[in-house]
This record gives sequence, C-alpha cells and structure tokens, in this order.
Amino acid sequence: MSGKIVSYEDLTAYVAKILAAFGYPLDRADITARVLVEADARGVASHGVARLSFYKKNIEGGFAVPTAEPSVVHETPMSVVVDGNHGVGSYVADFAMQKCMDKAAEIGAGFASVRNSNHYGMAGLWAEQAAKRDQIGLSFTNTRICAIPTYGKERILGTNPICVAIPQEGDDPFMVDMATTTVAHGKIEVYERRGLDMPLGWVVDEEGKGTTDTPHFQKLFWGASPFGGHLFLGGEGEEHGGHKGYGLGLLVDLLCAGLSMGRWSFKTFSGTGSGIAHFFGAMRMDLFGDPTELKRHVSGILEEVRNSGKAEGQDRIYIHGEKETEARARNMKQGITLDEATCTLLDKYGTAFDLGSLF
Amino acid sequence: MSGKIVSYEDLTAYVAKILAAFGYPLDRADITARVLVEADARGVASHGVARLSFYKKNIEGGFAVPTAEPSVVHETPMSVVVDGNHGVGSYVADFAMQKCMDKAAEIGAGFASVRNSNHYGMAGLWAEQAAKRDQIGLSFTNTRICAIPTYGKERILGTNPICVAIPQEGDDPFMVDMATTTVAHGKIEVYERRGLDMPLGWVVDEEGKGTTDTPHFQKLFWGASPFGGHLFLGGEGEEHGGHKGYGLGLLVDLLCAGLSMGRWSFKTFSGTGSGIAHFFGAMRMDLFGDPTELKRHVSGILEEVRNSGKAEGQDRIYIHGEKETEARARNMKQGITLDEATCTLLDKYGTAFDLGSLF
Repeated sequence: MSGKIVSYEDLTAYVAKILAAFGYPLDRADITARVLVEADARGVASHGVARLSFYKKNIEGGFAVPTAEPSVVHETPMSVVVDGNHGVGSYVADFAMQKCMDKAAEIGAGFASVRNSNHYGMAGLWAEQAAKRDQIGLSFTNTRICAIPTYGKERILGTNPICVAIPQEGDDPFMVDMATTTVAHGKIEVYERRGLDMPLGWVVDEEGKGTTDTPHFQKLFWGASPFGGHLFLGGEGEEHGGHKGYGLGLLVDLLCAGLSMGRWSFKTFSGTGSGIAHFFGAMRMDLFGDPTELKRHVSGILEEVRNSGKAEGQDRIYIHGEKETEARARNMKQGITLDEATCTLLDKYGTAFDLGSLF
Repeated sequence: MSGKIVSYEDLTAYVAKILAAFGYPLDRADITARVLVEADARGVASHGVARLSFYKKNIEGGFAVPTAEPSVVHETPMSVVVDGNHGVGSYVADFAMQKCMDKAAEIGAGFASVRNSNHYGMAGLWAEQAAKRDQIGLSFTNTRICAIPTYGKERILGTNPICVAIPQEGDDPFMVDMATTTVAHGKIEVYERRGLDMPLGWVVDEEGKGTTDTPHFQKLFWGASPFGGHLFLGGEGEEHGGHKGYGLGLLVDLLCAGLSMGRWSFKTFSGTGSGIAHFFGAMRMDLFGDPTELKRHVSGILEEVRNSGKAEGQDRIYIHGEKETEARARNMKQGITLDEATCTLLDKYGTAFDLGSLF
C-alpha cells in the first residue's frame, strides 16, 4: 500500500475516534486530533497523526492518564503555575494558554509554567492562538532526552523547542517555531532508511565525538547506553556556535521545568507520568502602541526582508511560518497526503477498534 | 608596546575622562565607562574599551548625540516605549531597564521597546540587573547590518543578540547572552591577522555561497557592495538549521524595531542617528511561586548538567555566564589585561585630551 490522500475533516474525525478508543474523554480526543492533523496539514509530519502510536504507548506505560484534570497550584493576575497531573498534553496546553490569553486581555500580559504534562504537539499551535488575539505568543516545552550539552556526551536535554509568534497584517503571524537541536530525530530516520551517512554536526557518538555513521548512531540512541546524542544548533564545540544552541535548549528547560518546580528533560519519562513541562506567554500588542500601526510596521519589515538580494540559484527568501501556512492552504483544498506507514497505522487502529476504513 | 595590565577602577576613571572629552555629560560618561570596562573585565574584549573609537566616530558622524535625553512615547503600568532621541546607548538602556524593573516590582512584569538609541554594550549587563532583583531579565538589540537571511546574499540584518538571565542561588544568574550570528566579526579579524582561512559556515560571499577566503570576505564586507555577509547560527541553507538562526535574528529585529516603530537593522546608520533599537523585559520570579524554592530548583538542574558525562578529552561542561563570572573575579584581583592596540588607542586619547598616561 502506498500513501493516501484524505480530507482534513475526515482525518480529524477518524483520529478523534481512535483517541477515544485509547481512553481519551471526547473533549480531549477532539483537541488532540485537531493538534495532530494540523501538523500534517502544515507539512510537519513529525508532529502529525503518526504520533498516535507514541500516544498509545504513553498511556500503556503510565506516562499519560487521559482522564486527568489539570490543577492550578499558584496564580497571580498575570501568571499561573499549572500541574497537568499527567493528563493529555494538548488539553493541558490549551488550559494554560487560555489562561495566559485571558490574563493578557485583562491586564496586558499572562504567563504560565506547567509541570507534569505530556507531548503537546507543534509548539506553534499554542503561540498562534495569542497572535489571533493581537497578542505576542510564547510557547516552549521540554521533551524526552535526546541531546547533549557542549563538551558532553550524555543525553540529558530534549529537543526543547522555542516558539514566538508576532502578529502582523493579515491572518498569519510571523512565527519562529524551532527545535533548539540541529535536527529532529525524524531526519536521522530518513537518512537511515535511505542508507545515507549523516552530515557532521548533527550528532555525537558514545565518546562525545561527531559522527556521520547513521546505523551506529541509531543503535546507540535506542540502546541502553546513556551516551551519544543530538547536538544543539551550531553543532559540536564552539567553532560554529554550538554553545549558543545548547544555551537556548537549557534556557527552555529552566523556563518550563525551572519555573514550575517540574522535571527537567533528564527526569522525564522516569517514574509516574512523563513529567513533560511547558512555558507559555501572551503579551498584548497595545502594550507598545496602536496594534494596527505596529502590525503594519512588522509587515513592512518582513516585506523588505523578502525583497532583499537572493543567493545564486535561489528565488525566494522565506519568512518563518510561511511554508506551513502555504502547505495548509494547499492541503485544505487538495486533502492531506499521508505516507504509507501512517496509513498502515491508521488501518491497524481502525481494525482493532472496529472503526471501519478511513480510505 | 605590548599589552598592559590595569586596575578596574583606574581604567574606568580614565575611560570616563575620555568620554567626557568626547562631549559626554558626566553621568553618561560614567555609565558608559562602566559598561565598556565590565566587558573587558569579563574577557569580552569585543565589547570593551576598544569600542571607544567607534563611539567617537558615532558622534562625529551624527549617529550619536551625547547630550540627548530619552523620552517616553507610550506607557502602561507594564510597558513603556522609549525614544532614545539618538542619545548615549548605555544611558538609554539604563533608563529603559530601570523602568522595566520598577514596573515589575510594582505589578509583576515590565517590558520596554526602544527606538533611536545607540550601541548599549554587552546585552547581559542589562538583563543581569533584573536577576539581581529576583526578576528574570530580557535584553535584545539590533545592530549595524552584517548578516544575511537563509537563501539571501545581501547584508540586511545585524548580529542581533539575545540575552535572558534567570536567577539561581548565589549572586550570578544563568545567563545566555549570544549574537544570533554564528560568530562575531571580531573572530574573522583574528583569522585575518593570522592569515588563516575561515571554517565554512561562518559567512557567504557576494553570490551568497559559503566561503573560507578571509581576505576576500573582508574586502567585500568593508567595501561598497551590499552583498556577502555573516551567516546566522546554523550556517548556510537548512541542513544545519541556518533557517533557525535566521529566525532568531529576525525575531530580535521585530521585538526591538517592530514593537517600537523604530528602524530595523537594515535602516540603521542611515540618515540622522544610528537608529539602533532595543527590547527589554523584567518578570518577577514570584509570579511562579516562592523565589527561594524556584532558585534552588534552577541551581539543582544546572548542577546536574555540570555533573553529566563529558566528551573524551573534556573535563568540564560550562553553564552560560560562568566563564564571564570567573574571568571577572580573576581580573578584579589581578587587573585587566589590555592588548597592544587598545593601549595605543588609550594613549592616543590621553595625549589628545591631556589626561596624562594611564600606564
């Protein structure tokens, strides 16, 4: 069976049914299905419905409790600390981000640190909610360990993404949404499937030395050894700024776990619950003047960036968020293309839970 | 003449006299001298007293007006927009950061966007002020153009540093303070002086292609062509995440210039004033609970990072801010070592302004 095309609506409804069969209450199944399908719609398959098997394993392993309710452990007019109580990541994230945006609407800004949550999907889905309300949106999360600090060799930090959304004219904000590691692990899996060596600068081996050996690294990464892992943006050592990427990754853990008394990446997925921690923020544009004027100014800057000189052989300079917005517009019309492995996964769950075929 | 060692106090007093001779009012001479000497004390010579000649040129070129007073153009209980009116960068930065910290002390957080300022020294000097008051500190600035976007070849963005300081136990915060470009230009000058090729991934040439040719790049960079420039963290193209570093650099310009209706990097140093823009923030730790407990938790995470497995041949994993703190402690005892070129510069001004010799 090769890949298939399916509509956004059909896919969302089907994925929600699968999640309900996993034990998700309906509201959590709905929001999680939307979060996963949005990623596929935007061409970010790494955060899409293929994650269903990971979500299932999290329940089976006791890392996620689908019926758990988040609770507020500390609150001020501008801030909230949320304990996710090991509940559904997207549900907990929505709870915390709503509080940030409501606080911002009330007094100008709102911030939330969150402990004991789970995987919350693409970071940008939360930050962009704020941008839709003329607020600057922040969304950070720690993740399962995969990355090593500069001069280290032990996997102690996650991909720890950073996302900031800044409103501009029109519906779609400027949005930088990036793992602080050089690449996501999915990229290495592509190289493995194709039998290719990785470029130097993506990962280090069990001695902490850069390696291009994809099969050896994969064995290390999934094996019992705590050594060998992803490099942060800037790569090995300091020559290309690897210490900067490491600084950003560590910053994310301090904001998420540090400010919530939660578990940092190294302590996630050990004991009860995955212990994933997030940090969110929302700041009203009118803290800084007339939002219409500010958004026009932001759009003007971005237009000048687009129009600047292109490298030989290149015809476009991208603004962050554009690729995903364009992919979404295309896929809402044409349908979402799922790869073969994902189709097989959906069929497997469809059969197991007697949901009929999606395709 | 080779390098010399001089005490922090003597150097600060001497630099303040030079700045006063440039036309700086005494309060601005004092704060700017401290900002420059602090950088040298911390081993960050690129932001140290060697900058005096750049500061002088800024006055002569009409980019900086030492007597100008900053003004507030928009204010809320949590935010302020400052017009620096082309005044002294460190004076304007201090004005804006004080407002952030006072607002944070009052209601929890304070943010400032600043237009029409000038070079403000190391970004960290402002963020760490907040950390000393148990506040998370933010400090960003755009700069003169030097960098190109992914797939571009035109210098349109600055080094656009990001700084975030997070309080921990003890006096010194965790502080990531980093240009979003791969390297500062000073590093390329070192390679030029030593007659070395640069590593690939630092810069591109006039066609937007990566180059290792240091003399050719320097000619381009200081010449009339707008093409060729620094790469952002992650280097050329997307293979090593260059689009992420570019996203961070652009984000800094949108926060600084975008939210102040100011000039983005591309428009700095053209027309009246340099037009440098900043963004600052301060957020009280107790927005998220008991600061003592939170700082202990942050310190605990950092200690575990330090103690994690080291790469072969490495005996230390650094936390961001440590190198600078240790250099400062050493130099406060031993004195600050200035290189030959900097000593010559100070002697030149000392003679010109009849200040006597520092050495």
